Amino acid sequence: MLRPFPYSGCPMRPALLAIALSFAIVAPALAQDAAKPKYRSAKEIIDAAPASAWRDLDPANTLYMELPAGRVVIELAPGFAPEHVANIKTMAKGGFWDGLAIYRSQDNFVVQFGDAEGEEAGKAKAYPSGTRTKLPAEFTRDAKGARFDKLPDIDGWAPEVGFIDGMPAARDPKTGKAWMAHCYGMLGAGRNNAPDSSIGAELYVAIGQAPRALDRQLSAVGRVVKGMELLSVIPRGPEPMGFYEKPEQRAPILSIKLASDVPEAQRTPLQLLRTDSQAFIDATEARRNRVDGFYTIPVGHIDLCNVPLPVRATPAK
Amino acid sequence: MLRPFPYSGCPMRPALLAIALSFAIVAPALAQDAAKPKYRSAKEIIDAAPASAWRDLDPANTLYMELPAGRVVIELAPGFAPEHVANIKTMAKGGFWDGLAIYRSQDNFVVQFGDAEGEEAGKAKAYPSGTRTKLPAEFTRDAKGARFDKLPDIDGWAPEVGFIDGMPAARDPKTGKAWMAHCYGMLGAGRNNAPDSSIGAELYVAIGQAPRALDRQLSAVGRVVKGMELLSVIPRGPEPMGFYEKPEQRAPILSIKLASDVPEAQRTPLQLLRTDSQAFIDATEARRNRVDGFYTIPVGHIDLCNVPLPVRATPAK
Repeated sequence: MLRPFPYSGCPMRPALLAIALSFAIVAPALAQDAAKPKYRSAKEIIDAAPASAWRDLDPANTLYMELPAGRVVIELAPGFAPEHVANIKTMAKGGFWDGLAIYRSQDNFVVQFGDAEGEEAGKAKAYPSGTRTKLPAEFTRDAKGARFDKLPDIDGWAPEVGFIDGMPAARDPKTGKAWMAHCYGMLGAGRNNAPDSSIGAELYVAIGQAPRALDRQLSAVGRVVKGMELLSVIPRGPEPMGFYEKPEQRAPILSIKLASDVPEAQRTPLQLLRTDSQAFIDATEARRNRVDGFYTIPVGHIDLCNVPLPVRATPAK
Repeated sequence: MLRPFPYSGCPMRPALLAIALSFAIVAPALAQDAAKPKYRSAKEIIDAAPASAWRDLDPANTLYMELPAGRVVIELAPGFAPEHVANIKTMAKGGFWDGLAIYRSQDNFVVQFGDAEGEEAGKAKAYPSGTRTKLPAEFTRDAKGARFDKLPDIDGWAPEVGFIDGMPAARDPKTGKAWMAHCYGMLGAGRNNAPDSSIGAELYVAIGQAPRALDRQLSAVGRVVKGMELLSVIPRGPEPMGFYEKPEQRAPILSIKLASDVPEAQRTPLQLLRTDSQAFIDATEARRNRVDGFYTIPVGHIDLCNVPLPVRATPAK
C-alpha cells in the first residue's frame, strides 16, 4: 500500500546523477566526490532562481475569469493575435462575459465559453460598444523579430518548438512563421468554418492531451497561468462534443475583467519564470534527464507541452 | 458569437481532399469528379467499419470501477504486466478497493486510488487472501512475439510507437523491449522508490497531457476504455501533488470488480476497434491529414497519444 507515487513535482530523495564532470584543480580524493554532482531537481533549481529570472504578469495584459469556485488567471498573447486580444479587452471592459457561462466541456479536449445563445436571433447578448465584429484570422505570426527560446527536443507537429513571449510556440524556418502551440491551458478563439470568423467572443481552453492538430488552424490568444484546476474539473457534457443539453447544466461565469481594471488590492500579483533564464533552461534539463532516486532513466527528451511554466506569487518587497 | 468549435470528432461539412487517385476504367468526365474523392472523416470511416474490425472486450480481463457518478471500465494489460494484473484480479475478487477512495487528484497529471491509510500501522486494510505482497517490476516486456501495429509518426520519447494488444505502446529495436505509453487514461501501479515496490494495490490514471516521462519507470497495467469523464473531473487536491488533506475530501469508490464476476445482465458489453484493422489505419490517416472544411491544413502527423481508440456498445445480434 504505497501512497505517494508517481511523482511529477516533488522528488523526496534526490540521488546522484551519473554524469562525470571534470574538476581539474581539486585534489584526487575530493575530485571523486565532486565528479558526481548532486542531481538538482527542477524545484530546487527554480526555488534558487534569482529575482531577475522572474517577470511580472502585466495587469494590462491579464484577464481574471471569476467562477463560483474561484479565479482563473489568463495571460493574453498580443504578440500572436493583436487584433483578437484588443477585441477581447474591449469586450472584457464592457462586461460581455459577465453572467454568461461555460457551455461546453468535452473530455480530453476543451472547455468553451461565451454566449450559448449567441446564434439564436433575439437571444444573443449585444456586444459592448467598440467591439469589432470582423477580424482577420491570426493563426500565425511573422517569426522575424520574435525572440524564440528554442528547445533542443524534436517535435512531430512542427520543425521547431520553444517559447515566444513566454508562450509555448512553434516555428517553421521555411515559411518564416511562428504560432502558439495548443498545450494544456492554451486559450483560443472559437470560429465557424471561415478562417476569419472568430472575434474572441467565444473562447476555449485545452483541458487534456495537447490538441496540437489545432495549431495554425485557429487563433490562439493566450494561456491560463493560474486556476486551470478550476476549469479542468467542469463536468463533461454529452459526447461527442460536450455541449450541455440544458441551460442549467452550464457552468456560470461571474465575470471576466482585465486585471488592470480591478482595484489593486483585489488583484493576484503573479510572476512567471522567464523562458530565457538559466533557471528555466536548467529546470527543463532536470526534467528531461530526471534521475532522482524514483526516476531512474535519463529519458533525454521532453515534449514542449510537458514543460511546466512556473508561476509564483509576487514576493513582498 | 460562434458556438460549436473547435471540432475534435464531428466535422459537419466534409469537404474535398486534394489527393488525386486514378480510376482507369471510368469515363473522362466521371474521372474528373472521381479523381478528387470526398474526404472521409474518421467518424465516417469508423461507422462503416465491418464487424470484423471490432473485438470484444474480454470480461475476464476487464475491471468495473463503480463510482457514485457511474461506472469506469478498464481493460487490463496482462501482456505487459502479467504478475500485476493477476494480483489486481485477486484483489478485485477479494473486494479490496470496495469502500476505499480516490485520495489524490493532481491537475494535468494523475488521479490515484487505493488505501489512503495503507501506510499507517493498524489502519491499513488487509489484503485479500492470495494477494502477493512482492512482485517484480514490469516496466517493459520482450517485444518479440508481440504484434506491433506501428505508426509512421515520429516520437520524441521512443524510437517507435504504435499499438500492442490494443494499448498505446512504444518499442526499442535496439533493446528488443516494448512498453505501454502513458497516454491519457493509462492505468499504472504506484510504487515507492524501489522499482519492485508496486503490487497493484495503489493505482493511478493519467488525466492530462500524457506523462510519457513515466514510461518504463512504473508498471503500466491497463487503460480506461470508458468513463474517463468521471475520473477526469474529480476535484483536484492541493498542490503540488494533489493528495487531499482531509479524508472527507476523498472521492469514494463503491467497488472495483472483475467484469466476469458481475452478473451478465449488469455488464457493459463493449467492443474496441482493432488497431490492425483497415478502418483504424484509415481513420488515423483521416485525423493525420484532416481537411474537412473546418480544418484546412493537412498536418501530416499525429501523436501516439492523440490517436483515439474507438469504443462502442456491442451491437445486438
